Amino acid sequence: MLHALKRVLVGSPMTTAQARYERLAKIPALAIFCSDALSSVAYAPEEIRIFLMLAGAAALSWSVPIALAVATLITLVATSYWQTIHAYPAGGGAYTVARENLGVLPGVIAGASLLVGYVLTVAVSVAAGVAAVTSAFPVLYPSRVWLGVLCVTFLSVVNLRGIRETGRVLALPTYWFLGCMVIVVGVGLVRSGTAPPAGPPALPVDGPLVPLTTFLVLRAFSAGCVALTGIEAVANCVQAFKPPEARNAGITLIWMASILGVMFLGLSFLSDIFSLVPHEGETLISQLARIVLGQGSLYLMVQAATMVILLLAANTCYAGFPMLASLLAKDRFLPRQLMNLGDRLVYSNGILLLSGLSIFLLVAFQGDTHALLPLYAFGVFLSFSLSQLGMVRRWAKIRGRHWIHHATVNMVGAMVTAVVMGVVGVTRFADGSWMVIFVIPILVLGFFTVQRHYETLRQQLSLDGFSPPKLGRHPVVVLVGGIHRGVVTALAYAKAISPNVTAITVDLDPTATSRLCMQWPEWAPNVPLVVLESPYRSILQPVLRYIDQMEKQQDGAYITIILPEFVPAKWWQHLLHNQTALLIKAALLFRRGKVAISIPYHLEQ
Amino acid sequence: MLHALKRVLVGSPMTTAQARYERLAKIPALAIFCSDALSSVAYAPEEIRIFLMLAGAAALSWSVPIALAVATLITLVATSYWQTIHAYPAGGGAYTVARENLGVLPGVIAGASLLVGYVLTVAVSVAAGVAAVTSAFPVLYPSRVWLGVLCVTFLSVVNLRGIRETGRVLALPTYWFLGCMVIVVGVGLVRSGTAPPAGPPALPVDGPLVPLTTFLVLRAFSAGCVALTGIEAVANCVQAFKPPEARNAGITLIWMASILGVMFLGLSFLSDIFSLVPHEGETLISQLARIVLGQGSLYLMVQAATMVILLLAANTCYAGFPMLASLLAKDRFLPRQLMNLGDRLVYSNGILLLSGLSIFLLVAFQGDTHALLPLYAFGVFLSFSLSQLGMVRRWAKIRGRHWIHHATVNMVGAMVTAVVMGVVGVTRFADGSWMVIFVIPILVLGFFTVQRHYETLRQQLSLDGFSPPKLGRHPVVVLVGGIHRGVVTALAYAKAISPNVTAITVDLDPTATSRLCMQWPEWAPNVPLVVLESPYRSILQPVLRYIDQMEKQQDGAYITIILPEFVPAKWWQHLLHNQTALLIKAALLFRRGKVAISIPYHLEQ
Repeated sequence: MLHALKRVLVGSPMTTAQARYERLAKIPALAIFCSDALSSVAYAPEEIRIFLMLAGAAALSWSVPIALAVATLITLVATSYWQTIHAYPAGGGAYTVARENLGVLPGVIAGASLLVGYVLTVAVSVAAGVAAVTSAFPVLYPSRVWLGVLCVTFLSVVNLRGIRETGRVLALPTYWFLGCMVIVVGVGLVRSGTAPPAGPPALPVDGPLVPLTTFLVLRAFSAGCVALTGIEAVANCVQAFKPPEARNAGITLIWMASILGVMFLGLSFLSDIFSLVPHEGETLISQLARIVLGQGSLYLMVQAATMVILLLAANTCYAGFPMLASLLAKDRFLPRQLMNLGDRLVYSNGILLLSGLSIFLLVAFQGDTHALLPLYAFGVFLSFSLSQLGMVRRWAKIRGRHWIHHATVNMVGAMVTAVVMGVVGVTRFADGSWMVIFVIPILVLGFFTVQRHYETLRQQLSLDGFSPPKLGRHPVVVLVGGIHRGVVTALAYAKAISPNVTAITVDLDPTATSRLCMQWPEWAPNVPLVVLESPYRSILQPVLRYIDQMEKQQDGAYITIILPEFVPAKWWQHLLHNQTALLIKAALLFRRGKVAISIPYHLEQ
Repeated sequence: MLHALKRVLVGSPMTTAQARYERLAKIPALAIFCSDALSSVAYAPEEIRIFLMLAGAAALSWSVPIALAVATLITLVATSYWQTIHAYPAGGGAYTVARENLGVLPGVIAGASLLVGYVLTVAVSVAAGVAAVTSAFPVLYPSRVWLGVLCVTFLSVVNLRGIRETGRVLALPTYWFLGCMVIVVGVGLVRSGTAPPAGPPALPVDGPLVPLTTFLVLRAFSAGCVALTGIEAVANCVQAFKPPEARNAGITLIWMASILGVMFLGLSFLSDIFSLVPHEGETLISQLARIVLGQGSLYLMVQAATMVILLLAANTCYAGFPMLASLLAKDRFLPRQLMNLGDRLVYSNGILLLSGLSIFLLVAFQGDTHALLPLYAFGVFLSFSLSQLGMVRRWAKIRGRHWIHHATVNMVGAMVTAVVMGVVGVTRFADGSWMVIFVIPILVLGFFTVQRHYETLRQQLSLDGFSPPKLGRHPVVVLVGGIHRGVVTALAYAKAISPNVTAITVDLDPTATSRLCMQWPEWAPNVPLVVLESPYRSILQPVLRYIDQMEKQQDGAYITIILPEFVPAKWWQHLLHNQTALLIKAALLFRRGKVAISIPYHLEQ
């Protein structure tokens, strides 16, 4: 039944031969790989204003300079990654680049940061997507956690089915969103010329204002840095572009960075012009669209587009996370279950793990984008920095044409992103960054523990100097409770596998035991029956004691214990039988040289 | 570790030889077997007043006539049971008497009613005991559910240890409680003469009054009938008395009925004199003791005695329920697990079941005595009635001296209790009786289902006309994923149990498979290796298909599938390995003629 449900939800299995990879032109590629990066404009400008607001309305004038700083950072990081794309046309994720050039530890740190980043992208994007909906329909606001969980479940099912063939279809929403943003920013700029200048915004008064310190400005800047998340996606997937792959990917990256920068600046500038104040219950983009386009269907279209691109952004993680997890599992840093493709040619276990973790975050943070964001930027900048540093090492090793020029670009990128990482870590530590700062080392430690386990496993299983155990006249013990079809069948099996068979029975009820002893010669004349005393009426203890004694006396490597079991026809009938066999098997599992065999006897009704 | 915890809580195991039974004289026996019946005065008089109150203060004058009716009922039922005691000196519980004289179905119905009654006695007594404490310390009232759960847990632990040797110690609290009741009623009667007559009590106004109909009077009477619960305890345990058993038990029963009747009448009368009004938060006894004895230490002693006797009443069910469950399990109406004595010579599973069910009731009804009581009386009177009817049939069969006289007494008892059962069922149906009226037939149906299962099991396992399966050159299949110590060990085992060994491997990764095929001849030259294709990358499906094909070709009764498994040294390492072996074993369990064997290879670290 479970199997049927799986087939309905996930579809029929697919053969390995069905795997195919389509190459993308720049236009659809931009849409598919950049939804993550571009969608961050849905929350990043708002974050800057939330922190400046703490120092009062006047402080909001800092939002445009900060937006400019973030836009500069985008340019710098994009340039660095442009170089990575050309250096790693086979795909240069931060894990690969850092591991190859800097060594295992930095690589694994980058991998851990990326995994954390993917989980947070899903949680943040889904939370922000739900916020776009609840801004338009406030009645849904109390159900936001459930809506978020629903979205993640939907994404899991879609991705467990696999969405290969729909690549081009996914391009539409991104361009729809870009179109909406162009309309909002364009109409907004036109209106801003004619509208009377708004006074300083009326802030909701809750608590005294904090002074506008450098720390607060840096904190607002750190908050804005979430705009850079997802910028590395193109570099991971160079192979998905039509040839010449590197060139096409590079151009797409530049387009993306430009669009991202322009949208980010435009939205920040307009928020300032219209004196928008972020508040719980309605997003900044929703406020802006409402002012610029009115309450009508155009407004609803903007909100729908925002929701859809954010879901797409979450969806890209369903490619990235399972693939990175599989890469880490191949290198033995993660359990092997994450390594293999499921029956729909997707990394099913990775998809389920990602969904589970992001649902956990959505529930724990009550689907609040603003509460989730402080966890976000630190890990992303850590992986940026490690990846750029890896590139510097690579230039220094290869020393091609203009290598000093290239190395300098990446060095500047590495240093700036490292500084930003430090700023994010310090200024947002108390907001929630601390969790990520703790989780990444724990993950790295976990990776190495897993790797060490697989390594010692390999050594322990190695055949060097190993000779298979001698089984000799290997003893078989049949545990008997009475004499019936199941027991007679088990005795026949025992005699088939060894000439050295003993039957044992535990004396719980003297009447039943003596009846058994009387019937025994008729059904098993050649098998000795040993009656074990059990003063405390336990079955397990006397059996284990007998087997331990037996082990001392014999020289073979294994003792086999046969347990006659009947398999009931209906599930509830299992409850009616003593779970003794299960107990004995569990106890024997932890003793060396014991093999427990259940001989099933199937009941008809 | 779990084992050590069990030993600390429950104590060391005891041998079967340690079982001993002490015979009791009348004085301790009264205390031990009658705590259940006597303790019901802690809530029964209150219940009558709660219902009369609905019709206003004037209606409370009905409480003494109703109490007289209940006392008459007590006399009648006690007389009937006195005859049962003499007829069944070996112990005549309702299940035994009804089954022996009326047939299986009435017996089983009486058994089901009794089981329900025991569970309710624990829940009601514990709830009422906690109410005695929270009346004295209202600050504990919000924690009443947890206090109740704590009490039940305490009773379970005590009973899992076994409390045989403390029989006489348990007599003290009952006499302490009786002493307290004598003081309260005695001092109360003296004071009532001198105190000015109280006016009609001020009722808490909530909702309009209902008219004082016959139905309401009957409802109040039904509520008061809970005083009769536990009256059958002496008849169940005649064998525990010193000889002459029947005579001593009969006298004890008469004493108990007299004391119960007098206390019940006294408390009802005094409640009327002092115009007491039941209300949530303080019991009637607590109010009475406070008025009669003042707020001092004497009052606290009464509350403590009430609490303790109610716990004792609950405790008696820990003897009755597991013993009856064991009796039903011996007759195959309940799972066999309930039949056997645990390692402390008590029916451990029955004790755990009783505790689980009563905790469920306490939580579901929020530890509210008044809400639990409507469920109580119906089942008790059903078992009374069946047991008396059984006695009538018995007199008619045996026809001894004065048999018509005896039969008439029991007939009157049976008819009166049947009428009371009907009144209780109808008047308290909406209050909660309906639950019991539904649960008893469901239980009876369950009993017969279980019995049919054991019966068909016996037939299916019968050796009549059975010949053990021929195993021939029985085929053994070893599932192989690579070549390592675990696999080589498993191959050695396979060769030891059969000359007909095949190895199979599922081709998931062509590189690994071809490496395996190259290494194979070196380590297993005599065993053919079959490579199974798996287009959908599943291990389970190709293996099952191969085995199904094999089954068609061979003629032996069994195919053995050997799974090399390594047993990790640490628990968390289990998470790192594919649970394929477990899946395969689960799938094979439901196919006939397949034996799955795990050959463990123990890892050191």
